[in-house]
Amino acid sequence: MINKLSGWDDTIVALSTASGAGAIAVVRITGSNTFQIIESLFPSKKLSTQATHTVHVGMLAENGINIDEVVLAIFKGKKSYTGEDTIEISCHGSMYIQQQIIAACVRKGARVAKAGEFTQRAFLNGKLDLTQAEAVADIIAANSQKAQQIALNQLRGGFANQLKTLREELVTFAALIELELDFSEEDVEFVDRKKLIENIVDIENEVRPLIESFKIGNAIKNGIPVAIVGKPNAGKSTLLNTILNEDRAIVSNIAGTTRDTIEDTIQIDGVQYCFIDTAGLRTTTNEIELVGVAKAKQKITEAQIVLLVCDVAEPIDDVILQYKNLALTTEQKCIIVLNKLDAISKCDAYDIEEAIATLSKQKCIAISAKSKTHIDKLMALIVSQAELSLSTENTIITNARHYNELQQTLISLTEIRTALSNNLSGDLISVDIKKALMHISALTGNIEHDKDILGTIFGKFCIGK
Amino acid sequence: MINKLSGWDDTIVALSTASGAGAIAVVRITGSNTFQIIESLFPSKKLSTQATHTVHVGMLAENGINIDEVVLAIFKGKKSYTGEDTIEISCHGSMYIQQQIIAACVRKGARVAKAGEFTQRAFLNGKLDLTQAEAVADIIAANSQKAQQIALNQLRGGFANQLKTLREELVTFAALIELELDFSEEDVEFVDRKKLIENIVDIENEVRPLIESFKIGNAIKNGIPVAIVGKPNAGKSTLLNTILNEDRAIVSNIAGTTRDTIEDTIQIDGVQYCFIDTAGLRTTTNEIELVGVAKAKQKITEAQIVLLVCDVAEPIDDVILQYKNLALTTEQKCIIVLNKLDAISKCDAYDIEEAIATLSKQKCIAISAKSKTHIDKLMALIVSQAELSLSTENTIITNARHYNELQQTLISLTEIRTALSNNLSGDLISVDIKKALMHISALTGNIEHDKDILGTIFGKFCIGK
Repeated sequence: MINKLSGWDDTIVALSTASGAGAIAVVRITGSNTFQIIESLFPSKKLSTQATHTVHVGMLAENGINIDEVVLAIFKGKKSYTGEDTIEISCHGSMYIQQQIIAACVRKGARVAKAGEFTQRAFLNGKLDLTQAEAVADIIAANSQKAQQIALNQLRGGFANQLKTLREELVTFAALIELELDFSEEDVEFVDRKKLIENIVDIENEVRPLIESFKIGNAIKNGIPVAIVGKPNAGKSTLLNTILNEDRAIVSNIAGTTRDTIEDTIQIDGVQYCFIDTAGLRTTTNEIELVGVAKAKQKITEAQIVLLVCDVAEPIDDVILQYKNLALTTEQKCIIVLNKLDAISKCDAYDIEEAIATLSKQKCIAISAKSKTHIDKLMALIVSQAELSLSTENTIITNARHYNELQQTLISLTEIRTALSNNLSGDLISVDIKKALMHISALTGNIEHDKDILGTIFGKFCIGK
Repeated sequence: MINKLSGWDDTIVALSTASGAGAIAVVRITGSNTFQIIESLFPSKKLSTQATHTVHVGMLAENGINIDEVVLAIFKGKKSYTGEDTIEISCHGSMYIQQQIIAACVRKGARVAKAGEFTQRAFLNGKLDLTQAEAVADIIAANSQKAQQIALNQLRGGFANQLKTLREELVTFAALIELELDFSEEDVEFVDRKKLIENIVDIENEVRPLIESFKIGNAIKNGIPVAIVGKPNAGKSTLLNTILNEDRAIVSNIAGTTRDTIEDTIQIDGVQYCFIDTAGLRTTTNEIELVGVAKAKQKITEAQIVLLVCDVAEPIDDVILQYKNLALTTEQKCIIVLNKLDAISKCDAYDIEEAIATLSKQKCIAISAKSKTHIDKLMALIVSQAELSLSTENTIITNARHYNELQQTLISLTEIRTALSNNLSGDLISVDIKKALMHISALTGNIEHDKDILGTIFGKFCIGK
């Protein structure tokens, strides 16, 4: 691991637990002077002679004035999270004490840590690669089981190992090309070009699923947007309330009740779905409602799944027309929800089975939001349309930076393959190989560190991590 | 220590750090099944065979599904905060993970802890007496150096030791009276009544300073209220802004600018002062201003220190009249602040020295809030008027419950003394002794625990402590 960043040989301190008053709070300090600083504030014991991973109770005091009775956990050198001497100070949780302890550490020579600086140290000291460091932030941000499982898998090095293998394959490949390059003047082709192309195709086939997993990864990380759309009074708000099992949206018989888009999330099978109730789509002169309709249209374009809510008593052609008007992209999934099943009797309803058959190319379901009929079936349909069939056992990438680097890698790989097919010379090919290697290395941080890039990555962390 | 409360032999779990997302969070679990529960969630190590006060890193998982990579700190039996097996789980700080860990512990048999239940266990297991347990809550609530020093001293047993001595003296005294009682039929007075009275006076002299310290203790704990009052346009809001060193109150030349009372706190010498800017005191027909004037009058009665702000150019008799109109109690301190020193020249001003001499029975000072003249002297005067001369080395009580119990103790002591003086019989006196003992014991919790009282005390704690 290359440690070229300046200014990280000092000792840093920060509150690591959530800000605010609690029963206890944890202040964390790491760096070469950790023991010297804390020993000057902890008269009762010589900490540096204690074993690593031990806990010590005593009074923290500065110049004879007691600060707090604390519990210190000692982590020495390489065995700590950061890879440097670290002490975690568990104090009483008042904001006042937290500040006093941090201030005392600063007076004794520590510096207040910047966001993500503890994890950055772990990275710079080779305790984590860059994808693992990024996983730490993802774990803290995770709000569903799947998102957290993916981040945890990434932290444990699942993705990092895969990248390591990829990198080794590329390095081997580069060596073969170099070999050809060295002897090119002798006009001897050491390596079978056909074999090389097969090699590159294999590598492309490893990169491509990772790129494709981003769609799912991103959905799992940020939640899957589901827009509820339809004509005024189709029962969209009632459906939202039924799905959320609470009175989230105001419901009335007056068409155009909902103006603002109302959003709320629920978890299904450990994945977060963000349901968005929109204003009814109709031509209106009411200015506020017009804004609402415009917003609804915007939300439709952003949704991954669209629930088109129609009255089950509507003529089927109307439903089809509404569907066409949505003008969804091929990426977007639509479920046609024939609502108000409660309001019709068998005799006066048109044949629902037939309607569903007509709409069979689309997913279609008849429900009653009001009497909560077939809501479970609707939810199952939503989950199936979310297409999260990939197991979280596979590596799923969730980070836009990873997605971009992998895409760049794939572009370079394709260029290599084309160059090989066109029988271009080895020195031209080696430029593309270097590019591909650079993008793979940028993922794990296995290159000379660019301060700006690292600043951007760790700046997204919370303070104290 | 008597452990008569039912339902505290189970294992309890709670988030101990502030709620919200942070870099890390600490979930605490204590009770007889602590090791069994956490071992069922921590496959990598047998924790119960590890030494106390050690730290262990590993994966927390339930039924094969990983929850988080955590750091566990082990505290065994009597050596823990609660006096029972305790494990502190440092996890990544997302709300989601915090909930998952607590839920997993509950599924394995723990119960979610009630507010203050960890400290209650410490009390019930004899790790802390009741005054020390209460000090824990005070430390967490402390927002100034003095408040925190007092609470810390109380936690370390300063007050508890003093109460122990008091209690022993009373018990000895009771024994002497009992002795007299036993032999009363024989009409032999074993103990010299004069000596007994001297004994009681000694005890009273120990209790009285504790009671008196409450005034200061309460001021230190809750801050000292300082009301800024005076005629409209005397410069009250300018003075508040100058004291706080920020533009807190809106200042204008228009009389009656301030209507709401504006409050803000600053710390001087580790003590918190709460400055309250009030509406100018004048007869007005403006309804909003009238409400403001009424509020100002209310704030005056609540203040411990009143700053009466006058224009230095005002006739001295007017100033005296304003002071009289304040109708302060003897408990309240007043400082007459002759403001706008900047606006007068030596020649056109009446003699300030003379004014101050005239007002000499009151604390008086000439300043300019606008040009910040003599503000430091005013602040020193405020501190001297706060009468916080008692050193925090002495025991200072800050808790209304302690104040009440000590007052009741003193009443009983006085009754004992009166009874002794009136030569009442020993059995009558022993009733009062029992009362005094009961109140002292209630302070430390050294009696049969009343569930309601304990519930009230620990219910004021935050969850997880």
